Amino acid sequence: MTTITRDHCLALDQADTLANLRNEFKLPAGTIYLDGNSLGAMPRSSQTRALEVITQEWGNDLIKSWNLAGWFDLPSRLGNLLAPLIGAADNEVVVTDSTSVNLFKALAAGLQIQADKAETAQRKVIVTERSNFPTDIYMAEGLTRWLDRGYILRLVDTPQELATAIDADTALVMLTHVNYRNGYLHDMQAITQHAHQQGALILWDLAHSAGALPVSLNEAGADFAVGCTYKYLNGGPGSPAFIWVAPRHQQAFQHPLSGWWGHASPFAMQPSFEGTPGIRRALCGTQPIVSLAMVECGLEIFAKTSMQALRQKSLALTDLFIQLVEQRCTQHPLELVTPRKHAQRGSQVSFHHQHGYAIMQSLIARGVIGDYREPGIMRFGFTPLYVGFADVWDAVEILRDILDTKDYALNATRHAVT
Amino acid sequence: MTTITRDHCLALDQADTLANLRNEFKLPAGTIYLDGNSLGAMPRSSQTRALEVITQEWGNDLIKSWNLAGWFDLPSRLGNLLAPLIGAADNEVVVTDSTSVNLFKALAAGLQIQADKAETAQRKVIVTERSNFPTDIYMAEGLTRWLDRGYILRLVDTPQELATAIDADTALVMLTHVNYRNGYLHDMQAITQHAHQQGALILWDLAHSAGALPVSLNEAGADFAVGCTYKYLNGGPGSPAFIWVAPRHQQAFQHPLSGWWGHASPFAMQPSFEGTPGIRRALCGTQPIVSLAMVECGLEIFAKTSMQALRQKSLALTDLFIQLVEQRCTQHPLELVTPRKHAQRGSQVSFHHQHGYAIMQSLIARGVIGDYREPGIMRFGFTPLYVGFADVWDAVEILRDILDTKDYALNATRHAVT
Repeated sequence: MTTITRDHCLALDQADTLANLRNEFKLPAGTIYLDGNSLGAMPRSSQTRALEVITQEWGNDLIKSWNLAGWFDLPSRLGNLLAPLIGAADNEVVVTDSTSVNLFKALAAGLQIQADKAETAQRKVIVTERSNFPTDIYMAEGLTRWLDRGYILRLVDTPQELATAIDADTALVMLTHVNYRNGYLHDMQAITQHAHQQGALILWDLAHSAGALPVSLNEAGADFAVGCTYKYLNGGPGSPAFIWVAPRHQQAFQHPLSGWWGHASPFAMQPSFEGTPGIRRALCGTQPIVSLAMVECGLEIFAKTSMQALRQKSLALTDLFIQLVEQRCTQHPLELVTPRKHAQRGSQVSFHHQHGYAIMQSLIARGVIGDYREPGIMRFGFTPLYVGFADVWDAVEILRDILDTKDYALNATRHAVT
Repeated sequence: MTTITRDHCLALDQADTLANLRNEFKLPAGTIYLDGNSLGAMPRSSQTRALEVITQEWGNDLIKSWNLAGWFDLPSRLGNLLAPLIGAADNEVVVTDSTSVNLFKALAAGLQIQADKAETAQRKVIVTERSNFPTDIYMAEGLTRWLDRGYILRLVDTPQELATAIDADTALVMLTHVNYRNGYLHDMQAITQHAHQQGALILWDLAHSAGALPVSLNEAGADFAVGCTYKYLNGGPGSPAFIWVAPRHQQAFQHPLSGWWGHASPFAMQPSFEGTPGIRRALCGTQPIVSLAMVECGLEIFAKTSMQALRQKSLALTDLFIQLVEQRCTQHPLELVTPRKHAQRGSQVSFHHQHGYAIMQSLIARGVIGDYREPGIMRFGFTPLYVGFADVWDAVEILRDILDTKDYALNATRHAVT
């Protein structure tokens, strides 16, 4: 392998047809932001959009904005904008609530659909990974404990075990497409197919894949999906999440959070719940409009490129990061925990180091913003919309310097005592 | 009764010690806003606060703001600011999610607490009013249908029936403190006491009372409460709601929406849910920070006055409105559906008119913003923070003119055909 130079990275930036998209974002000076997998950067249009909602729609038009500004339809309008990024179509997605709450709805509805079919009514197993994002497991625990109908969680330890774990007892499979910790990317199509062959339904959490890489929900034949808009979709801190329901399940989609926004006649004030047809039945209560409206600013940027182009750059960035760390930090005990295979890699790279926490603190202090996850995992997210190739070089140089000089030693002591 | 004049109303404004609070809000020119019971007006500080969160906390500090700006603690910090307005104390309230979702949590936890006690385990009745805000009923329907343990909703038709409807079969009483349609105010203390005497728990929805009148949750001995921040609390469109749990129930408070924000160690990424002690167990998933942060701007204004002073002005405004309508619109078939007794009246006045919808359209066209609820109900909300006495006079004059000239006839035709 040839030795990579900073000039080579600069040349890659010169040749990068997506490089100008960085101008769509406001990024702090002197920072290399490698944490878009946790909180996406701020689109320049977000401030303008928020001010418009606050001063004009709220301040001036007040209650009229529910109709005039289309607040009530916003979850659907944003869902339709988001749909192409995840391989979905119009009227299949709404932006609403948190990922956890949407996961609860999809899990509940999926289990009910299975319970209502004679051939699957007895199935009591929900298959997921022990390494899934914890809140997904917590929500499944909460739902099943409360339903008290004998549902159990089957937690698998490696992706390879999924094939046998998904069996004739499985009601539902719940997986996060890209693992939050190590960036492992599941083969959505193969696992979905296998789940269906076993008679199970499948729910995908796209928190770390929506906006990070091409997702093909309809092509894969998936059943349900949820995900986050504040990571790779750059919707703003804690911006409302999304839920997708395959059209074939929408009629049977019933969940316990039956609030007025999911009612067939939300303004008729009827005394009993009657779910609206279609994806809006996944809605529940009134949504936080300012945070919701800013989701559009992130989505608009994706219209200027394609998920295929973004994926190509994302893989080039993560490849480069892995190569540079391995070339320039050779004598340090960094262990790559993200798959090398493109087909198994999301848009992040994670390295394990015994002093991962302390090293990440030093990186952040020197302007390289990644994050840390127990145990010992340093996560680096590469958002192709605003991260460049020279950024990768510079980040690795700072990492190398921190490791060479043991600059992190004081932080390591601090971590040990807190 | 003496005839009231506009000069009299102007004199009331002159003498109003709360009149200057109107300057805290940005209200559109030429508008008399009588819909703060649906969407509160915009505090002047909201725009500044939103910009600070967007440009500084999100745009510049990015992921660091979870700690630096206290995003993770925001639901508790706002809950503590809100607590005094509803007769609660520190660490009893969090601002999070929607009212519907919070109602679901409180209902589920309340039923579980009853099911876990030998003496109430067999109780299967939830008492509420048929005229409760529909989503409250829908959420209870959703919960009980899913629990499938024989719970039933007992819907009463008048407040007077509550005394007998709450009986030894009642597990939980769920009431909205002030009725959304007619503004009827329940006696929280008496009903809570009666529910407890019958061995039932009680959940109050404060959507139309928090920020509208003094609420004394702890003094009344209530068990749970939920409510809205975007009506009388002026938090912004769809701003996150709140949930209060009496300290004596916090240890047993368990609900199915067990997300990572309610975990005892939210950042330890443990593979199983363990609820945090205290009110934060009512949290679930990541919150919409920009919408959430603006809740503070509304709450800050309340620190400049007292709920007692606001209540006094609120009653003076609603008294005046009723008197003026009855003096000046005598020949028109307007029927007051809001109680005349102060002890039974919230901060709104509702009149029924056969052509209520059409009349309200005419009022809105002429700058008097109230709203309409089926069947035939015109609602007028009086927010003492920004509505004055001359506003009441002017609103009634416009109403009188619309009625006298039958200006609404065209709208009535439109309503009939849509």
